[in-house]
Amino acid sequence: MSLQDILTTGTAPKRVAAGMGFWKSLFSALDTPVAAPSSVPADDPLAGYGPQAVEITPAIAANQRLILSTRRDIDLQELEALCDAVGWSRRPVRKVRRALDNSFLVVSLWEQLAQQRRLIGFARATSDHAFNATIWDVVINPSFQGQGLGRVLMEYVIAQLQQAEIPNITLFADPHVVDFYRRLGFVLDPEGIKGMFWYPS
Amino acid sequence: MSLQDILTTGTAPKRVAAGMGFWKSLFSALDTPVAAPSSVPADDPLAGYGPQAVEITPAIAANQRLILSTRRDIDLQELEALCDAVGWSRRPVRKVRRALDNSFLVVSLWEQLAQQRRLIGFARATSDHAFNATIWDVVINPSFQGQGLGRVLMEYVIAQLQQAEIPNITLFADPHVVDFYRRLGFVLDPEGIKGMFWYPS
Ligand SMILES: CC(C)(COP(=O)(O)OP(=O)(O)OC[C@H]1O[C@@H](n2cnc3c(N)ncnc32)[C@H](O)[C@@H]1OP(=O)(O)O)[C@@H](O)C(=O)NCCC(=O)NCCS
Ligand SMILES: CC(C)(COP(=O)(O)OP(=O)(O)OC[C@H]1O[C@@H](n2cnc3c(N)ncnc32)[C@H](O)[C@@H]1OP(=O)(O)O)[C@@H](O)C(=O)NCCC(=O)NCCS
Repeated sequence: MSLQDILTTGTAPKRVAAGMGFWKSLFSALDTPVAAPSSVPADDPLAGYGPQAVEITPAIAANQRLILSTRRDIDLQELEALCDAVGWSRRPVRKVRRALDNSFLVVSLWEQLAQQRRLIGFARATSDHAFNATIWDVVINPSFQGQGLGRVLMEYVIAQLQQAEIPNITLFADPHVVDFYRRLGFVLDPEGIKGMFWYPS
Repeated sequence: MSLQDILTTGTAPKRVAAGMGFWKSLFSALDTPVAAPSSVPADDPLAGYGPQAVEITPAIAANQRLILSTRRDIDLQELEALCDAVGWSRRPVRKVRRALDNSFLVVSLWEQLAQQRRLIGFARATSDHAFNATIWDVVINPSFQGQGLGRVLMEYVIAQLQQAEIPNITLFADPHVVDFYRRLGFVLDPEGIKGMFWYPS
Protein backbone atom coordinates (compact mmCIF):
# COMPACT_ATOMS: atom_id res chain seq x y z
CA MET A 1 0.00 0.00 0.00
CA SER A 2 1.24 3.49 -0.80
CA LEU A 3 0.50 6.98 0.41
CA GLN A 4 -1.78 7.38 -2.58
CA ASP A 5 -3.83 4.35 -1.54
CA ILE A 6 -4.32 5.81 1.90
CA LEU A 7 -5.39 9.08 0.34
CA THR A 8 -7.80 7.67 -2.14
CA THR A 9 -9.29 4.42 -1.02
CA GLY A 10 -11.09 2.60 1.64
CA THR A 11 -10.72 4.07 5.03
CA ALA A 12 -12.85 7.21 4.90
CA PRO A 13 -16.31 5.83 5.66
CA LYS A 14 -14.98 3.54 8.36
CA ARG A 15 -13.25 6.44 10.03
CA VAL A 16 -16.33 8.57 10.03
CA ALA A 17 -18.31 5.83 11.68
CA ALA A 18 -15.68 5.08 14.30
CA GLY A 19 -15.13 8.73 15.05
CA MET A 20 -18.73 9.66 15.47
CA GLY A 21 -18.98 6.86 17.97
CA PHE A 22 -16.04 7.64 20.14
CA TRP A 23 -16.36 11.34 20.57
CA LYS A 24 -20.10 11.61 21.10
CA SER A 25 -19.64 9.70 24.31
CA LEU A 26 -17.13 12.20 25.62
CA PHE A 27 -19.03 15.43 25.30
CA SER A 28 -22.29 16.97 26.19
CA ALA A 29 -22.36 17.92 22.54
CA LEU A 30 -24.21 20.82 21.04
CA ASP A 31 -24.51 19.74 17.44
CA THR A 32 -27.29 22.02 16.31
CA PRO A 33 -26.14 25.48 15.28
CA VAL A 34 -26.68 28.08 18.00
CA ALA A 35 -29.27 30.74 17.27
CA ALA A 36 -28.30 34.33 16.66
CA PRO A 37 -26.81 35.92 19.80
CA SER A 38 -29.93 38.00 20.49
CA SER A 39 -32.07 34.89 20.93
CA VAL A 40 -29.60 32.80 22.95
CA PRO A 41 -30.60 32.49 26.61
CA ALA A 42 -28.33 34.69 28.72
CA ASP A 43 -27.36 31.70 30.84
CA ASP A 44 -26.32 29.48 27.91
CA PRO A 45 -22.73 28.59 28.79
CA LEU A 46 -21.90 27.92 25.15
CA ALA A 47 -23.20 31.26 23.89
CA GLY A 48 -20.44 33.04 22.03
CA TYR A 49 -18.42 29.87 21.39
CA GLY A 50 -19.88 29.19 17.97
CA PRO A 51 -22.06 26.46 16.45
CA GLN A 52 -19.59 23.60 16.94
CA ALA A 53 -18.97 24.34 20.61
CA VAL A 54 -19.03 21.47 23.09
CA GLU A 55 -18.61 21.40 26.82
CA ILE A 56 -16.26 18.88 28.40
CA THR A 57 -17.89 17.22 31.39
CA PRO A 58 -17.14 16.78 34.13
CA ALA A 59 -14.88 19.81 34.54
CA ILE A 60 -11.74 19.56 36.65
CA ALA A 61 -12.71 22.11 39.32
CA ALA A 62 -15.94 23.42 40.83
CA ASN A 63 -17.60 26.43 39.17
CA GLN A 64 -15.43 25.75 36.16
CA ARG A 65 -16.62 25.08 32.65
CA LEU A 66 -14.35 23.70 29.94
CA ILE A 67 -15.46 24.49 26.41
CA LEU A 68 -14.12 23.56 22.99
CA SER A 69 -14.77 25.98 20.16
CA THR A 70 -14.02 26.29 16.44
CA ARG A 71 -14.28 30.09 16.34
CA ARG A 72 -11.33 31.77 14.66
CA ASP A 73 -11.53 35.21 16.22
CA ILE A 74 -9.11 34.33 19.00
CA ASP A 75 -7.21 37.11 20.73
CA LEU A 76 -3.75 36.63 19.27
CA GLN A 77 -2.03 38.00 22.38
CA GLU A 78 -3.76 35.32 24.40
CA LEU A 79 -2.76 32.66 21.87
CA GLU A 80 0.85 33.80 21.91
CA ALA A 81 0.83 33.79 25.72
CA LEU A 82 -0.36 30.16 25.61
CA CYS A 83 2.40 29.21 23.18
CA ASP A 84 4.92 31.13 25.29
CA ALA A 85 3.89 29.06 28.31
CA VAL A 86 5.14 25.86 26.62
CA GLY A 87 8.33 27.52 25.42
CA TRP A 88 7.52 28.11 21.75
CA SER A 89 9.12 31.10 20.12
CA ARG A 90 7.13 34.24 19.39
CA ARG A 91 5.70 34.63 15.94
CA PRO A 92 4.69 37.84 14.16
CA VAL A 93 1.04 38.52 14.97
CA ARG A 94 0.22 39.31 11.37
CA LYS A 95 1.52 35.93 10.21
CA VAL A 96 -0.37 34.12 12.99
CA ARG A 97 -3.57 35.85 11.89
CA ARG A 98 -2.95 34.80 8.30
CA ALA A 99 -2.25 31.22 9.40
CA LEU A 100 -5.51 31.04 11.36
CA ASP A 101 -7.48 32.58 8.52
CA ASN A 102 -6.08 29.98 6.14
CA SER A 103 -6.35 26.97 8.38
CA PHE A 104 -9.18 24.59 7.57
CA LEU A 105 -9.90 24.05 11.25
CA VAL A 106 -9.04 26.11 14.33
CA VAL A 107 -9.85 24.60 17.71
CA SER A 108 -9.55 26.41 21.01
CA LEU A 109 -10.14 25.17 24.55
CA TRP A 110 -11.46 27.61 27.13
CA GLU A 111 -11.80 27.65 30.87
CA GLN A 112 -14.85 29.65 31.86
CA LEU A 113 -15.15 30.83 35.49
CA ALA A 114 -18.27 32.96 35.98
CA GLN A 115 -17.86 35.68 33.32
CA GLN A 116 -14.10 35.16 32.93
CA ARG A 117 -12.83 33.06 30.06
CA ARG A 118 -9.27 31.95 29.53
CA LEU A 119 -7.64 30.21 26.57
CA ILE A 120 -6.02 27.01 27.86
CA GLY A 121 -5.65 24.86 24.74
CA PHE A 122 -5.28 25.12 20.99
CA ALA A 123 -4.83 23.15 17.78
CA ARG A 124 -5.37 23.78 14.10
CA ALA A 125 -5.28 21.92 10.81
CA THR A 126 -4.49 22.80 7.22
CA SER A 127 -6.36 20.91 4.53
CA ASP A 128 -7.35 20.71 0.89
CA HIS A 129 -10.96 20.26 2.15
CA ALA A 130 -11.13 16.92 0.34
CA PHE A 131 -8.38 14.35 0.88
CA ASN A 132 -5.80 15.50 3.44
CA ALA A 133 -5.55 17.40 6.67
CA THR A 134 -2.41 18.14 8.66
CA ILE A 135 -2.62 19.11 12.32
CA TRP A 136 -0.31 21.83 13.71
CA ASP A 137 0.28 23.77 16.93
CA VAL A 138 -1.24 21.36 19.46
CA VAL A 139 -0.88 22.81 22.94
CA ILE A 140 -2.37 22.63 26.43
CA ASN A 141 -1.46 25.21 29.10
CA PRO A 142 1.06 23.53 31.45
CA SER A 143 -1.17 24.12 34.50
CA PHE A 144 -3.85 22.06 32.77
CA GLN A 145 -1.68 19.24 31.35
CA GLY A 146 -1.82 15.62 32.45
CA GLN A 147 -5.57 15.63 33.09
CA GLY A 148 -6.82 14.30 29.79
CA LEU A 149 -7.49 17.63 28.10
CA GLY A 150 -4.91 17.10 25.35
CA ARG A 151 -6.64 13.85 24.48
CA VAL A 152 -10.11 15.43 24.42
CA LEU A 153 -8.84 18.36 22.34
CA MET A 154 -7.31 15.98 19.79
CA GLU A 155 -10.39 13.74 19.70
CA TYR A 156 -12.45 16.83 18.97
CA VAL A 157 -10.07 17.83 16.16
CA ILE A 158 -10.28 14.33 14.68
CA ALA A 159 -14.07 14.29 14.99
CA GLN A 160 -14.33 17.64 13.20
CA LEU A 161 -12.12 16.38 10.37
CA GLN A 162 -14.15 13.20 10.10
CA GLN A 163 -17.36 15.18 10.02
CA ALA A 164 -15.84 17.03 7.06
CA GLU A 165 -15.09 13.61 5.51
CA ILE A 166 -11.35 14.17 5.25
CA PRO A 167 -9.97 10.62 4.99
CA ASN A 168 -6.27 11.29 5.60
CA ILE A 169 -5.29 12.96 8.89
CA THR A 170 -1.58 13.58 9.37
CA LEU A 171 0.81 15.44 11.64
CA PHE A 172 4.47 15.87 12.45
CA ALA A 173 5.30 14.93 16.04
CA ASP A 174 8.25 15.98 18.17
CA PRO A 175 9.95 12.88 19.63
CA HIS A 176 8.64 13.56 23.14
CA VAL A 177 5.00 13.57 22.02
CA VAL A 178 5.03 10.60 19.65
CA ASP A 179 3.52 8.42 22.38
CA PHE A 180 0.84 10.99 23.14
CA TYR A 181 -0.30 10.80 19.51
CA ARG A 182 0.13 7.02 19.33
CA ARG A 183 -2.39 6.61 22.15
CA LEU A 184 -4.83 8.62 20.07
CA GLY A 185 -4.57 6.25 17.12
CA PHE A 186 -1.79 7.92 15.15
CA VAL A 187 0.63 5.52 13.48
CA LEU A 188 4.32 6.15 12.80
CA ASP A 189 5.52 5.75 9.19
CA PRO A 190 2.65 3.48 8.07
CA GLU A 191 3.78 1.25 5.17
CA GLY A 192 7.14 2.99 5.37
CA ILE A 193 5.70 6.39 4.42
CA LYS A 194 8.11 8.97 5.82
CA GLY A 195 7.66 12.55 6.91
CA MET A 196 10.26 14.80 5.27
CA PHE A 197 11.24 18.45 5.71
CA TRP A 198 12.96 20.58 3.15
CA TYR A 199 16.19 22.33 4.05
CA PRO A 200 18.04 24.55 1.60
CA SER A 201 21.00 22.57 0.31
CA MET B 1 15.39 21.86 18.37
CA SER B 2 11.69 21.05 18.03
CA LEU B 3 9.13 21.19 15.25
CA GLN B 4 8.02 24.51 16.65
CA ASP B 5 11.52 25.95 16.28
CA ILE B 6 11.62 24.89 12.67
CA LEU B 7 8.25 26.52 12.15
CA THR B 8 9.01 29.77 13.83
CA THR B 9 12.67 30.63 13.76
CA GLY B 10 15.66 31.09 11.69
CA THR B 11 15.59 29.37 8.41
CA ALA B 12 13.04 31.33 6.39
CA PRO B 13 15.17 34.15 5.04
CA LYS B 14 18.09 31.83 4.28
CA ARG B 15 15.80 29.53 2.36
CA VAL B 16 14.39 32.32 0.28
CA ALA B 17 17.86 33.44 -0.69
CA ALA B 18 19.11 29.95 -1.52
CA GLY B 19 16.00 29.11 -3.45
CA MET B 20 15.97 32.19 -5.57
CA GLY B 21 19.51 31.32 -6.52
CA PHE B 22 19.14 27.73 -7.48
CA TRP B 23 16.03 27.84 -9.56
CA LYS B 24 16.69 31.00 -11.52
CA SER B 25 19.58 29.19 -13.14
CA LEU B 26 17.36 26.38 -14.34
CA PHE B 27 14.66 28.24 -16.18
CA SER B 28 14.21 30.79 -18.84
CA ALA B 29 12.01 32.46 -16.28
CA LEU B 30 9.13 34.76 -17.01
CA ASP B 31 8.81 36.60 -13.73
CA THR B 32 6.78 39.57 -14.84
CA PRO B 33 3.05 38.92 -15.04
CA VAL B 34 1.89 38.27 -18.58
CA ALA B 35 -0.33 40.92 -20.11
CA ALA B 36 -4.02 40.32 -20.70
CA PRO B 37 -4.60 37.63 -23.34
CA SER B 38 -5.72 40.15 -25.95
CA SER B 39 -2.34 41.87 -25.90
CA VAL B 40 -0.14 38.77 -25.78
CA PRO B 41 1.69 38.11 -29.05
CA ALA B 42 0.09 35.16 -30.81
CA ASP B 43 3.45 33.39 -30.92
CA ASP B 44 4.16 33.70 -27.16
CA PRO B 45 4.66 30.08 -26.13
CA LEU B 46 3.71 30.88 -22.54
CA ALA B 47 0.42 32.56 -23.45
CA GLY B 48 -2.37 30.82 -21.61
CA TYR B 49 -0.12 29.28 -18.98
CA GLY B 50 -0.56 32.06 -16.44
CA PRO B 51 1.70 34.71 -14.88
CA GLN B 52 4.04 32.27 -13.11
CA ALA B 53 4.69 30.16 -16.19
CA VAL B 54 8.26 29.18 -17.01
CA GLU B 55 9.70 27.21 -19.88
CA ILE B 56 12.18 24.41 -19.20
CA THR B 57 15.11 24.65 -21.56
CA PRO B 58 16.45 22.80 -23.32
CA ALA B 59 13.46 20.58 -24.07
CA ILE B 60 13.96 16.84 -24.51
CA ALA B 61 12.83 16.57 -28.14
CA ALA B 62 12.81 18.84 -31.18
CA ASN B 63 9.73 21.05 -31.75
CA GLN B 64 8.80 20.36 -28.15
CA ARG B 65 8.24 22.91 -25.44
CA LEU B 66 8.06 22.01 -21.75
CA ILE B 67 6.18 24.51 -19.64
CA LEU B 68 5.46 24.75 -15.92
CA SER B 69 2.30 26.54 -14.89
CA THR B 70 0.43 27.42 -11.69
CA ARG B 71 -2.99 27.68 -13.32
CA ARG B 72 -5.69 25.72 -11.54
CA ASP B 73 -8.16 25.22 -14.34
CA ILE B 74 -6.71 21.86 -15.30
CA ASP B 75 -8.89 19.39 -17.18
CA LEU B 76 -9.63 16.87 -14.45
CA GLN B 77 -9.98 14.00 -16.92
CA GLU B 78 -6.46 14.73 -18.09
CA LEU B 79 -5.22 14.89 -14.51
CA GLU B 80 -6.87 11.60 -13.63
CA ALA B 81 -5.39 10.01 -16.75
CA LEU B 82 -1.94 11.15 -15.58
CA CYS B 83 -2.50 9.68 -12.11
CA ASP B 84 -3.87 6.49 -13.69
CA ALA B 85 -0.66 6.16 -15.68
CA VAL B 86 1.37 5.75 -12.45
CA GLY B 87 -1.17 3.36 -10.96
CA TRP B 88 -2.96 5.65 -8.52
CA SER B 89 -6.59 4.86 -7.84
CA ARG B 90 -9.35 6.97 -9.36
CA ARG B 91 -10.80 9.73 -7.24
CA PRO B 92 -14.21 11.38 -7.51
CA VAL B 93 -13.86 14.34 -9.88
CA ARG B 94 -15.82 16.62 -7.57
CA LYS B 95 -13.43 15.95 -4.70
CA VAL B 96 -10.39 16.48 -6.92
CA ARG B 97 -11.83 19.85 -8.01
CA ARG B 98 -12.38 20.81 -4.38
CA ALA B 99 -8.83 19.73 -3.48
CA LEU B 100 -7.34 21.84 -6.27
CA ASP B 101 -9.47 24.83 -5.35
CA ASN B 102 -8.30 24.58 -1.77
CA SER B 103 -4.65 23.90 -2.43
CA PHE B 104 -2.30 26.82 -1.86
CA LEU B 105 -0.27 25.91 -4.92
CA VAL B 106 -1.10 23.82 -7.98
CA VAL B 107 1.73 23.13 -10.41
CA SER B 108 1.31 21.45 -13.77
CA LEU B 109 3.91 20.49 -16.36
CA TRP B 110 2.94 20.58 -20.02
CA GLU B 111 4.40 19.30 -23.24
CA GLN B 112 3.49 21.63 -26.06
CA LEU B 113 3.90 20.36 -29.65
CA ALA B 114 2.69 22.97 -32.15
CA GLN B 115 -0.88 23.73 -30.99
CA GLN B 116 -1.21 20.46 -29.00
CA ARG B 117 -0.66 20.55 -25.26
CA ARG B 118 -0.46 17.56 -22.99
CA LEU B 119 -0.32 17.33 -19.20
CA ILE B 120 2.80 15.35 -18.26
CA GLY B 121 3.47 16.34 -14.65
CA PHE B 122 1.70 17.59 -11.56
CA ALA B 123 2.17 18.56 -7.92
CA ARG B 124 0.26 20.60 -5.38
CA ALA B 125 0.67 21.93 -1.86
CA THR B 126 -1.66 22.72 1.01
CA SER B 127 -0.64 25.58 3.30
CA ASP B 128 -1.70 28.02 5.97
CA HIS B 129 -0.18 30.76 3.75
CA ALA B 130 2.18 31.70 6.57
CA PHE B 131 4.23 28.98 8.28
CA ASN B 132 3.72 25.55 6.72
CA ALA B 133 3.21 23.95 3.36
CA THR B 134 2.76 20.25 2.62
CA ILE B 135 3.33 18.88 -0.87
CA TRP B 136 1.01 16.20 -2.28
CA ASP B 137 0.39 14.28 -5.52
CA VAL B 138 3.82 14.61 -7.14
CA VAL B 139 3.77 12.80 -10.47
CA ILE B 140 5.55 12.66 -13.82
CA ASN B 141 4.10 10.69 -16.75
CA PRO B 142 6.07 7.41 -16.99
CA SER B 143 7.12 8.14 -20.60
CA PHE B 144 8.80 11.31 -19.34
CA GLN B 145 10.39 9.96 -16.14
CA GLY B 146 14.12 9.65 -15.55
CA GLN B 147 15.03 12.76 -17.53
CA GLY B 148 15.18 15.30 -14.75
CA LEU B 149 11.63 16.61 -15.04
CA GLY B 150 10.58 15.45 -11.57
CA ARG B 151 13.49 17.40 -10.13
CA VAL B 152 12.66 20.56 -12.09
CA LEU B 153 8.98 20.27 -11.15
CA MET B 154 9.87 19.97 -7.45
CA GLU B 155 12.41 22.81 -7.62
CA TYR B 156 9.70 24.98 -9.13
CA VAL B 157 7.28 24.00 -6.33
CA ILE B 158 9.91 24.84 -3.72
CA ALA B 159 10.73 28.13 -5.41
CA GLN B 160 7.07 29.12 -5.48
CA LEU B 161 6.70 28.33 -1.78
CA GLN B 162 9.83 30.30 -0.99
CA GLN B 163 8.59 33.22 -3.01
CA ALA B 164 5.50 33.10 -0.78
CA GLU B 165 7.86 33.10 2.23
CA ILE B 166 6.59 29.81 3.64
CA PRO B 167 9.46 28.69 5.91
CA ASN B 168 8.44 25.09 6.54
CA ILE B 169 8.04 22.80 3.52
CA THR B 170 7.01 19.23 4.30
CA LEU B 171 5.78 16.10 2.56
CA PHE B 172 5.05 12.43 3.14
CA ALA B 173 7.13 10.15 0.93
CA ASP B 174 6.48 6.58 -0.11
CA PRO B 175 9.54 4.43 0.67
CA HIS B 176 10.53 4.14 -3.01
CA VAL B 177 10.73 7.90 -3.52
CA VAL B 178 12.50 8.90 -0.30
CA ASP B 179 15.80 9.11 -2.19
CA PHE B 180 14.24 11.20 -4.94
CA TYR B 181 13.20 13.78 -2.32
CA ARG B 182 16.48 13.48 -0.42
CA ARG B 183 18.40 14.57 -3.51
CA LEU B 184 16.20 17.64 -3.61
CA GLY B 185 17.16 18.66 -0.07
CA PHE B 186 14.39 16.99 1.90
CA VAL B 187 15.48 15.50 5.22
CA LEU B 188 14.01 12.45 6.94
CA ASP B 189 12.76 12.90 10.52
CA PRO B 190 14.90 15.98 11.31
CA GLU B 191 15.60 16.21 15.05
CA GLY B 192 13.50 13.07 15.45
CA ILE B 193 10.31 14.76 14.24
CA LYS B 194 8.10 11.99 12.92
CA GLY B 195 5.36 11.91 10.34
CA MET B 196 2.23 10.25 11.72
CA PHE B 197 -1.09 9.16 10.19
CA TRP B 198 -4.31 8.67 12.03
CA TYR B 199 -6.14 5.36 11.80
CA PRO B 200 -9.42 4.71 13.59
CA SER B 201 -8.64 2.59 16.62
C1 LIG C 1 1.32 17.25 24.29
C2 LIG C 1 0.22 17.91 25.12
C3 LIG C 1 -0.73 18.65 24.18
C4 LIG C 1 -0.54 16.83 25.88
O1 LIG C 1 -1.62 17.40 26.59
P1 LIG C 1 -2.11 16.82 28.02
O2 LIG C 1 -3.37 17.50 28.36
O3 LIG C 1 -1.00 16.89 28.98
O4 LIG C 1 -2.36 15.29 27.61
P2 LIG C 1 -3.42 14.30 28.30
O5 LIG C 1 -3.42 14.53 29.77
O6 LIG C 1 -4.72 14.40 27.60
O7 LIG C 1 -2.77 12.90 27.94
C5 LIG C 1 -3.42 11.95 27.10
C6 LIG C 1 -2.63 10.68 27.12
O8 LIG C 1 -1.33 10.90 26.56
C7 LIG C 1 -0.34 10.66 27.56
N1 LIG C 1 0.65 11.73 27.39
C8 LIG C 1 0.50 13.04 27.60
N2 LIG C 1 1.63 13.69 27.31
C9 LIG C 1 2.51 12.76 26.90
C10 LIG C 1 3.83 12.80 26.46
N3 LIG C 1 4.50 13.94 26.35
N4 LIG C 1 4.44 11.63 26.13
C11 LIG C 1 3.77 10.45 26.22
N5 LIG C 1 2.49 10.36 26.62
C12 LIG C 1 1.88 11.51 26.95
C13 LIG C 1 -1.04 10.72 28.88
O9 LIG C 1 -0.37 9.94 29.84
C14 LIG C 1 -2.40 10.18 28.52
O10 LIG C 1 -2.34 8.77 28.42
P3 LIG C 1 -3.65 7.87 28.75
O11 LIG C 1 -4.74 8.33 27.82
O12 LIG C 1 -3.18 6.49 28.49
O13 LIG C 1 -3.97 8.18 30.19
C15 LIG C 1 0.78 18.88 26.17
O14 LIG C 1 1.67 18.18 26.99
C16 LIG C 1 1.49 20.08 25.59
O15 LIG C 1 0.88 21.08 25.28
N6 LIG C 1 2.84 20.01 25.44
C17 LIG C 1 3.64 21.10 24.99
C18 LIG C 1 3.41 21.43 23.55
C19 LIG C 1 3.79 20.32 22.60
O16 LIG C 1 4.85 19.73 22.72
N7 LIG C 1 2.88 20.02 21.65
C20 LIG C 1 3.08 19.04 20.62
C21 LIG C 1 3.82 19.65 19.46
S1 LIG C 1 4.15 18.47 18.16
C1 LIG D 1 8.94 10.24 -8.36
C2 LIG D 1 8.87 10.88 -9.72
C3 LIG D 1 8.01 12.15 -9.65
C4 LIG D 1 10.29 11.26 -10.18
O1 LIG D 1 10.21 11.92 -11.42
P1 LIG D 1 11.39 11.76 -12.52
O2 LIG D 1 11.13 12.77 -13.58
O3 LIG D 1 11.51 10.35 -12.93
O4 LIG D 1 12.66 12.16 -11.64
P2 LIG D 1 14.01 12.86 -12.18
O5 LIG D 1 14.37 12.24 -13.49
O6 LIG D 1 13.88 14.32 -12.16
O7 LIG D 1 15.02 12.43 -11.05
C5 LIG D 1 15.67 13.37 -10.20
C6 LIG D 1 16.69 12.64 -9.36
O8 LIG D 1 16.04 11.71 -8.50
C7 LIG D 1 16.47 10.39 -8.84
N1 LIG D 1 15.28 9.55 -8.77
C8 LIG D 1 14.20 9.60 -9.55
N2 LIG D 1 13.29 8.71 -9.16
C9 LIG D 1 13.83 8.09 -8.10
C10 LIG D 1 13.39 7.06 -7.24
N3 LIG D 1 12.19 6.49 -7.38
N4 LIG D 1 14.22 6.67 -6.24
C11 LIG D 1 15.43 7.23 -6.08
N5 LIG D 1 15.89 8.22 -6.86
C12 LIG D 1 15.10 8.63 -7.85
C13 LIG D 1 17.05 10.46 -10.22
O9 LIG D 1 18.02 9.46 -10.42
C14 LIG D 1 17.65 11.83 -10.22
O10 LIG D 1 18.87 11.84 -9.52
P3 LIG D 1 20.04 12.91 -9.90
O11 LIG D 1 19.45 14.28 -9.75
O12 LIG D 1 21.10 12.60 -8.91
O13 LIG D 1 20.37 12.58 -11.32
C15 LIG D 1 8.30 9.94 -10.78
O14 LIG D 1 9.10 8.78 -10.80
C16 LIG D 1 6.87 9.53 -10.55
O15 LIG D 1 5.95 10.20 -10.97
N6 LIG D 1 6.64 8.38 -9.88
C17 LIG D 1 5.32 7.82 -9.66
C18 LIG D 1 4.51 8.65 -8.70
C19 LIG D 1 5.08 8.71 -7.31
O16 LIG D 1 5.46 7.69 -6.74
N7 LIG D 1 5.16 9.93 -6.74
C20 LIG D 1 5.60 10.17 -5.40
C21 LIG D 1 4.46 10.01 -4.43
S1 LIG D 1 4.98 10.30 -2.74
